[in-house]
Amino acid sequence: MNYAIVFRLLGYILLCEGALMGLPALVSVIYGEWNILWVFLFTIALCCVIGGALTRIKPRSKIFYRREGCVTAALTWILISVMGAVPFVLSGAIPDPIEALFETVSGFTTTGASILADVESLPMGILFWRSFTHWIGGMGILVFLLAVLPLTGGSHVNLMKAESPGPQVEKMVPSVRQTAAILYGIYLGMTLIQIVFMLAGGCPLMDSLLITFGSAGTGGFGIKNDSMGSYSTYIQVVTTVSMILFGVNFSAYFYLIRGKFRKVLIEEVRWYFGVILAAIALISWNIRGMFPSLLQAIQQAAFQVGSIITTTGYSTCDFDQWPAFAKSILVLLMFIGACAGSTGGGMKISRVILLAKSIRKEIAQTLHPSVVSPVRVDGKPVDHETIRSTNVFMAAYLILFAASVLLVSLDGESLVTNFTAVAATFNNIGPGLEGVGPMTNFGLYSGFSKLVLTFDMLAGRLELFPLLLLFVPDTWKKF
Amino acid sequence: MNYAIVFRLLGYILLCEGALMGLPALVSVIYGEWNILWVFLFTIALCCVIGGALTRIKPRSKIFYRREGCVTAALTWILISVMGAVPFVLSGAIPDPIEALFETVSGFTTTGASILADVESLPMGILFWRSFTHWIGGMGILVFLLAVLPLTGGSHVNLMKAESPGPQVEKMVPSVRQTAAILYGIYLGMTLIQIVFMLAGGCPLMDSLLITFGSAGTGGFGIKNDSMGSYSTYIQVVTTVSMILFGVNFSAYFYLIRGKFRKVLIEEVRWYFGVILAAIALISWNIRGMFPSLLQAIQQAAFQVGSIITTTGYSTCDFDQWPAFAKSILVLLMFIGACAGSTGGGMKISRVILLAKSIRKEIAQTLHPSVVSPVRVDGKPVDHETIRSTNVFMAAYLILFAASVLLVSLDGESLVTNFTAVAATFNNIGPGLEGVGPMTNFGLYSGFSKLVLTFDMLAGRLELFPLLLLFVPDTWKKF
Repeated sequence: MNYAIVFRLLGYILLCEGALMGLPALVSVIYGEWNILWVFLFTIALCCVIGGALTRIKPRSKIFYRREGCVTAALTWILISVMGAVPFVLSGAIPDPIEALFETVSGFTTTGASILADVESLPMGILFWRSFTHWIGGMGILVFLLAVLPLTGGSHVNLMKAESPGPQVEKMVPSVRQTAAILYGIYLGMTLIQIVFMLAGGCPLMDSLLITFGSAGTGGFGIKNDSMGSYSTYIQVVTTVSMILFGVNFSAYFYLIRGKFRKVLIEEVRWYFGVILAAIALISWNIRGMFPSLLQAIQQAAFQVGSIITTTGYSTCDFDQWPAFAKSILVLLMFIGACAGSTGGGMKISRVILLAKSIRKEIAQTLHPSVVSPVRVDGKPVDHETIRSTNVFMAAYLILFAASVLLVSLDGESLVTNFTAVAATFNNIGPGLEGVGPMTNFGLYSGFSKLVLTFDMLAGRLELFPLLLLFVPDTWKKF
Repeated sequence: MNYAIVFRLLGYILLCEGALMGLPALVSVIYGEWNILWVFLFTIALCCVIGGALTRIKPRSKIFYRREGCVTAALTWILISVMGAVPFVLSGAIPDPIEALFETVSGFTTTGASILADVESLPMGILFWRSFTHWIGGMGILVFLLAVLPLTGGSHVNLMKAESPGPQVEKMVPSVRQTAAILYGIYLGMTLIQIVFMLAGGCPLMDSLLITFGSAGTGGFGIKNDSMGSYSTYIQVVTTVSMILFGVNFSAYFYLIRGKFRKVLIEEVRWYFGVILAAIALISWNIRGMFPSLLQAIQQAAFQVGSIITTTGYSTCDFDQWPAFAKSILVLLMFIGACAGSTGGGMKISRVILLAKSIRKEIAQTLHPSVVSPVRVDGKPVDHETIRSTNVFMAAYLILFAASVLLVSLDGESLVTNFTAVAATFNNIGPGLEGVGPMTNFGLYSGFSKLVLTFDMLAGRLELFPLLLLFVPDTWKKF
């Protein structure tokens, strides 16, 4: 382990976080929340002092392998969450440190699961920071660092790989730094477009900003106690569309801008929209009797489907009251998740495609043992390494999932509550069903269970392995 | 597809079934149930006529690949279930053909899920046949055929592979026929030992026989309405021990008899007992307050753990009333299942070991990318083919599982009912939770859902691929 370079990078991350905290501080000034301003200024100072000290470490070696990339990613996400929780605790908004950590991790990992029963009473500066963590975490803070910092050595690719979701990382241009910049450019542009659409529909500025942060990062922290239920149909529809668009593989947008239309509708994107349309159709048909018109049923189904498959987690109604079939589809979507290379979580559409195709290959091989045809996606053969790691990912996913359900079940909540609580945190969604349904919150769990679910949120966001590596003694060996 | 040889084998299977049906016919004679006797005699005649006609087909080619093995296995299981359902329908015990098919498939696949609310009112001949299907299905009817019939060509291995559970088939001796005979010998011997122990505890002869059929095949059809709840502690303990022993990889017994003690406690067997002990300890601790003494809690925990992990499905109490932690452990055990090469179902311990080890390998490879160390079980490297097919198995398992839950959820039952109903049938266990808990039955589902669950039982028993092949048009091509 090259400790020096890891620590140095963590220093830069803290400086970044301090700088980003300037925005909620500004909001506190605008709203005249002077006590909140001091909280942010203190935290910014803390970031600068610790971050500044860490960046002075001079690494003797430039070695930066996948191991260093994974450890840096895992420690980065833990560090920004701990530091990001400080304002919640100091301001008294969430006095309990474990709950504050849960809320912050939920923010950065774009989960959107909350322990707060009454969000409307929070000071605006705190509310802004809470939603802003979604936006920061959506595209990833290491990707941000890569875009702004001229890093040297092999660190680029291994950092990007460790933080970016999906079975493969596609570099749209040869330079990692430029790829990161392009990703953040698209992200920022789409965010601005959504804000304009929200404002055009008469949504207040602050609401527009915070709802957009939540949908752009596919996070889902509501700023009203009923999530998105009290907003106009126009705003709900705009949010539906933008959630779904932020769940698309960002490389599709890159090729769209470049005019390479043939590369836009790749298999993953086609399947993504196919699954969404099928889910909306089936759910609308199932819930049609619960709404005055079919159009309203479709609109409600579309919002919830978009919110769950992209792992955002906003809600406009209590889907825990829907019939079993509709609920089962939503639970299934929780696991499938959005496209790789988007801001969404879950297993990712591309992984599901790879798994389905390897089943087809196995059947073909049983019928024709002498013919070996590789798994192909978009006409190109997928290398064996990717398929193997996808399979291992799924195995690790299942084992961690089962272990988490067992641990939180010690609290004695119902099976559906526990199962969907783990599903909603592990896949970075937010609400589950029953005790953690859209109209309730995660406050019912014990501190221990909250820590388990916090771990799940981080494991889900980093796609397991970076976090698992922290627990292997071999990782920490000096070379 | 070599149709001739497949049909010919199906003919032999029907003759086998007809012969085996002689036993329940005999029971009907003993109990003076003459109308039931006629039903069995008619079905036996049907088996002989159709079976006899099929065996007269003369195959021109002896080609028998894996494809033929899989198709024969799938059709065999469908055929014996359809024919086995005839006595239930004709005797009026289960007049509805779909329900009779569900019950028979549940018997042969050793699931033990029942649609009958009142089993105690059934005629003894029918009750005998119902439990006897467990014993036939436990070790497999094709394995039985292999043991008694001198087959030629490549059919041996491919039939054995298609029907035997687990990621690999171990031939204990070079000849397939001898291996099949050894397996059935051990199976019969252990069955007789259990019957002796039951009789020694004062259990009536017929109860001893039927309970033993259910535990030997890890089936679980109860012959009382409260399953095993009203039997003495001695009988419950004997059943606990024998269920657990029938879930052990049978090769362990083979090596035990041969005196090769070093090959008895293989990794799978060690893990199997480890998981059982851990589950009993955790559940006993969790439910200790519900029983007058800790010993009673341990005894109840042991029975239920043994029943669920071996996928038998007997119960001595309503574990649906247990706390969430205990129930979550039981649900987890439902998926893990027993050892490969036993009569139990589920994913099998050996698959879980392989998956866990491939995760460890992936982590090691991230840390040391240049060192490639293969996955080892019992010190021997596992070939790449086995790991790949284990992974594909799990992917197919998950996709079929999710699809089944969606389909049965159309009936509108609760999520836990649907999830555990599919889990209990797919893993060939029997009871689930809530609507299909140990004190209820599967009668609440619609005919359509019963067919879905029937498919799941067959898919679970044959480990997916043989049954999936039936749906691929390529399978049916003549060569």
